[in-house]
Amino acid sequence: MALNRKTTESIIVQRLQGKIALEEAVGSPYFVAHGTHPPSPMIIGSRNGLPPYNTPFLEDIDDRLDNIEKRLASMNASGIGYAIVSLTCPGVEGILDADEAVELARKTNDALYELYVKAHPTRFGFFASVPMQRPAEAAKELERTVKTLGAKGVLINGFTNINKNDVSEVQYLDDPKCEPFWKKLSELNVPLYLHPRIPPLNQQRIYESLPNLSQAAYGFGVETAGHALRIMCSGILDRYPNVQIILGHCAESLPFLVHRIDHRLAIGIRGTNGPYKKTMMYYLQNNFYATLAGVRRESTMRNTIDEMGEARVLFSVDYPYESNEDAADWFDGLQINENTRRAVAYENASRLFSIE
Amino acid sequence: MALNRKTTESIIVQRLQGKIALEEAVGSPYFVAHGTHPPSPMIIGSRNGLPPYNTPFLEDIDDRLDNIEKRLASMNASGIGYAIVSLTCPGVEGILDADEAVELARKTNDALYELYVKAHPTRFGFFASVPMQRPAEAAKELERTVKTLGAKGVLINGFTNINKNDVSEVQYLDDPKCEPFWKKLSELNVPLYLHPRIPPLNQQRIYESLPNLSQAAYGFGVETAGHALRIMCSGILDRYPNVQIILGHCAESLPFLVHRIDHRLAIGIRGTNGPYKKTMMYYLQNNFYATLAGVRRESTMRNTIDEMGEARVLFSVDYPYESNEDAADWFDGLQINENTRRAVAYENASRLFSIE
Amino acid sequence: MALNRKTTESIIVQRLQGKIALEEAVGSPYFVAHGTHPPSPMIIGSRNGLPPYNTPFLEDIDDRLDNIEKRLASMNASGIGYAIVSLTCPGVEGILDADEAVELARKTNDALYELYVKAHPTRFGFFASVPMQRPAEAAKELERTVKTLGAKGVLINGFTNINKNDVSEVQYLDDPKCEPFWKKLSELNVPLYLHPRIPPLNQQRIYESLPNLSQAAYGFGVETAGHALRIMCSGILDRYPNVQIILGHCAESLPFLVHRIDHRLAIGIRGTNGPYKKTMMYYLQNNFYATLAGVRRESTMRNTIDEMGEARVLFSVDYPYESNEDAADWFDGLQINENTRRAVAYENASRLFSIE
Amino acid sequence: MALNRKTTESIIVQRLQGKIALEEAVGSPYFVAHGTHPPSPMIIGSRNGLPPYNTPFLEDIDDRLDNIEKRLASMNASGIGYAIVSLTCPGVEGILDADEAVELARKTNDALYELYVKAHPTRFGFFASVPMQRPAEAAKELERTVKTLGAKGVLINGFTNINKNDVSEVQYLDDPKCEPFWKKLSELNVPLYLHPRIPPLNQQRIYESLPNLSQAAYGFGVETAGHALRIMCSGILDRYPNVQIILGHCAESLPFLVHRIDHRLAIGIRGTNGPYKKTMMYYLQNNFYATLAGVRRESTMRNTIDEMGEARVLFSVDYPYESNEDAADWFDGLQINENTRRAVAYENASRLFSIE
Repeated sequence: MALNRKTTESIIVQRLQGKIALEEAVGSPYFVAHGTHPPSPMIIGSRNGLPPYNTPFLEDIDDRLDNIEKRLASMNASGIGYAIVSLTCPGVEGILDADEAVELARKTNDALYELYVKAHPTRFGFFASVPMQRPAEAAKELERTVKTLGAKGVLINGFTNINKNDVSEVQYLDDPKCEPFWKKLSELNVPLYLHPRIPPLNQQRIYESLPNLSQAAYGFGVETAGHALRIMCSGILDRYPNVQIILGHCAESLPFLVHRIDHRLAIGIRGTNGPYKKTMMYYLQNNFYATLAGVRRESTMRNTIDEMGEARVLFSVDYPYESNEDAADWFDGLQINENTRRAVAYENASRLFSIE
Repeated sequence: MALNRKTTESIIVQRLQGKIALEEAVGSPYFVAHGTHPPSPMIIGSRNGLPPYNTPFLEDIDDRLDNIEKRLASMNASGIGYAIVSLTCPGVEGILDADEAVELARKTNDALYELYVKAHPTRFGFFASVPMQRPAEAAKELERTVKTLGAKGVLINGFTNINKNDVSEVQYLDDPKCEPFWKKLSELNVPLYLHPRIPPLNQQRIYESLPNLSQAAYGFGVETAGHALRIMCSGILDRYPNVQIILGHCAESLPFLVHRIDHRLAIGIRGTNGPYKKTMMYYLQNNFYATLAGVRRESTMRNTIDEMGEARVLFSVDYPYESNEDAADWFDGLQINENTRRAVAYENASRLFSIE
Repeated sequence: MALNRKTTESIIVQRLQGKIALEEAVGSPYFVAHGTHPPSPMIIGSRNGLPPYNTPFLEDIDDRLDNIEKRLASMNASGIGYAIVSLTCPGVEGILDADEAVELARKTNDALYELYVKAHPTRFGFFASVPMQRPAEAAKELERTVKTLGAKGVLINGFTNINKNDVSEVQYLDDPKCEPFWKKLSELNVPLYLHPRIPPLNQQRIYESLPNLSQAAYGFGVETAGHALRIMCSGILDRYPNVQIILGHCAESLPFLVHRIDHRLAIGIRGTNGPYKKTMMYYLQNNFYATLAGVRRESTMRNTIDEMGEARVLFSVDYPYESNEDAADWFDGLQINENTRRAVAYENASRLFSIE
Repeated sequence: MALNRKTTESIIVQRLQGKIALEEAVGSPYFVAHGTHPPSPMIIGSRNGLPPYNTPFLEDIDDRLDNIEKRLASMNASGIGYAIVSLTCPGVEGILDADEAVELARKTNDALYELYVKAHPTRFGFFASVPMQRPAEAAKELERTVKTLGAKGVLINGFTNINKNDVSEVQYLDDPKCEPFWKKLSELNVPLYLHPRIPPLNQQRIYESLPNLSQAAYGFGVETAGHALRIMCSGILDRYPNVQIILGHCAESLPFLVHRIDHRLAIGIRGTNGPYKKTMMYYLQNNFYATLAGVRRESTMRNTIDEMGEARVLFSVDYPYESNEDAADWFDGLQINENTRRAVAYENASRLFSIE
């Protein structure tokens, strides 16, 4: 560290090894076929319809979704020791036919177990896919996957399509029909990752001329934060207080907003917004974890830690939609204390998922 | 400050005098009559329809909107030296008939000038109302109000209804038809306060069972942040780089989100989201101010200052929908340095609006 | 939470119950007699000599040091469930005669055990006093006190007087003679609280006309931070890496300064500042805890958490030199998330000291 | 920004142009000769005595102090548009003979004006040196230098030696004899940069075995913070409330400590610590600026902004004792908003010193 050095204007980032990532998407040999209904813009349709992403980003997306060797190489280059993978968005939730959903979930879980966990037990865990079109089946599949295949929890892509003939008829997780799923989730005591899904087309007026805004840039977060608020308001977390829900993208802006949401709900007539018993702030701090997936801004991370505590914030990437290397360069280079860095990088996830 | 004191568990807050507030709603003798179309939930309809606010909050809302002596007493009790008032939401924007909108705007501006500014020049300024149903008329009325009545700028309640027979046909400010308004705004060099408005009913699926969420609790912010992003994407701020837009509620979560929005827009195909030339972050830091209206959470304020700088954050209340006294108790009691407190309390607003 | 309330300008703070405090001074029936040499300004001499504190603060200081019922009442009023008490400054370290020091330490430890721990096992723990004038005896007394009396660790008031005839001859804890103490501390695996002590008179030039600055206001912190740096530089923490040292007053400004200290040490000739193997930052984050004793400023607490992580910051008061009620009013009223509040209030201390 | 990029683990920092730096040391053709008494460790003696800096740091220190072309090249490489230079530590303050001090100050000021300001008016300003050994002469020289040579203010290296035969007899700036200097400083309305100086040897017990700690690593800051507190306590800032004092190194930890200092002073007997009328916090926020000289830690900078406001924090380097390029790499690469970055980088300094 000589002081009379010549500058390079470039800074070498020291790699923190052993990071754990948990919003990591993979394809499935069974998914593409099923994915034809509804149009799945993030997979098939993405090149012809929405989202209008540029070519370099999309050209090898299928390969990056499925190529395990490439994924491991990228994890190695980024200091990511362990990844919990899950079926890419919209997942089983976007399957219009309920029977097909049941079947796809089962096949996907078996495939993810075989391809990732069994083949690379020290590097991969996975989140179960479940057919929320039939909540009792979802509960059953969740139990099988957790108990038999060692799934680390379940990932659900927002709302679920429930009408073969109408893509706009959907079901949120606060629907009373979902009770069997929540009961089982609580009983198994594994986390739910609530993943974003593009808002339905007929709900996108504000973004109509701005296709990207409707998706990852802004709409994703709004849709998912709204969904989380519905769950909070529904009383589910009072009935199952041990349930833990993971939100990506620094909890989709809820850390910034939740105080004001509580403030306004407090002047509402009690009961008109659901039978919830605690504040939204309480649920956020006791039933939610936030990941850094897709976030590379220090003040956003700090706000999230400020409202949730450093024990509830988890590193993640969202590979292959985000770059492992970029995420690691940002995170490893943050000028923060090493205790907090390790907690966020792997200690919190290691404790939550019993990863050694 | 004896150390052997007995506790009271209560803390006396020292009042900071001279604060300036600028999201402060008033009624209008002309507004109620016009307000019958469309149903204006925040005013007339609020007791029968939405929002389902509890009685204490609503019982004297009309009085608090219009009673100037009561308002001044509350400002005095709260250390608010000066307030910039504006016609309460949805304002002229919610008038279905364009002719009526033109007339209401003019009458409202004259009335606010007479009742507030002329009567109490050291205590009140006002934001103009303009009929965006006819942008050229809006530009004209803005010029008249600023030049003749000394308006401090203009306040617009989100989208504007533009069809007598269909309340769902609305116009956002990025509509090319609004160009005359932006041109005049830039020419007059006064700020625009972009105020929230409840999202249209047909856009509220995510909140459907949660009436409060659709409004101040969450939907307000989403609607307004989305609107701000449309303006940013439209290129207006490149054509009129001196335009300054004020957002309430700590800029409606944009400080938390804008880095990620830019990150995702960057992988979109250039041009598909509008002809904008700079990043959303750039616009936020150069063309926007954030007020604390409705916010009483330190980490949220800090995140806003972190992303916009302390010179672009402004105290405000949202009286009478929020309590002047509560807002002042919170703000005056914050354990922050006095230079930043004064900047946010009145110095920034004083500079922006030439208030002495 | 009606919005049309009248202000009181006072805020009721909700008490957080169960807080743990650990820089809590008590007298000793044996201390006053011993305390006559050297002059002990904080106890006897304080009324005639330094510090020139005002009357209300001092008039009942002896009573507050020793009156256990009054202490418990104050703890109850402040939500402090458990306190780890220790002999008040300068403690055994200020005894000039080594034999007396050995005797005082033993008697004090027995007395504290009887009066506090045995009498109120759910409310009090204690830190051992040890005669550092004879490090081997100190190690022995530490072992006895921890194993027999259940002491939670040891508290040392900075440097130790080691010459009967010269009060300026003192010994810091990095003195090689202290090795037996460090060895035993590591073996017993209990923390050391490094408490401030007034810098010797012949080292106070900078404060000479400013008696208070030399003490709690500024000099205390400088003396103690310097002492901590000596320990870091000495290599002790490399030889005994499990040693944990607690510093009061948000670690005496080291969180703010340690990066720069490392930066400057890095350009020094290796070895001239001691045989240390890691950075000061490393030691601070791995071998130190910080308490809030005497601190009631949010930005200072935040900076400490920023550099040490929220798991290494501990609530404390410094009763009776600080007010339990004031400290609790400040801490309980902080607008921070409840997870971090609980961690700092009692979870971290509970884990560190095995308090249930 | 393709997401499928390969990592380099290095990050290119974008240079912010136009930064202003103001703790920038230069030599003087007259200084070395005078510097022989007292031993000046930072200049002559540094290679034989203290500080024991490693060779790469020291080998070209004289060249870097005096070589203007090299300095300009380094400024260019670092985006530093303008530097306010000053005679390197200990400066005129370390001259034992008062007559020599008067002469050296005058010659130095003339030389700095000729070599830097006159030769490169768009790149350099300078701080006056003044002979505090004779305060009336110091006032006179300050006036001459400001009015005739356009000095941007004055820099003083802590205490001043005032006894030819005893290097330990020194004078701090709160000495009543310094009144003529303060009167003139206030009248001219230019800032004083209070620069650190190594604590006298007989005051270094705490660092005795740790030579580097006594200097830049820790002792520098203690000495200077203590000096600033003496000035605050002395009442000078009440008599001359327009006086502005600049402290390096993020105000030498005062932002972190000042709340507690006030808290403890408040329990002292009024008057025993000086005739000051306001709190230390008040003075810090109204009469002080902090520079980043020597600091490259984000949390430290944030704490400083938190307590002083972003308008009172100024970029600086401390070239050639610090690297321009390293400082710029750190500062330019901080993930902070651009408004705050520009304020700290040059806007605040530009306003304070009327630099265009």
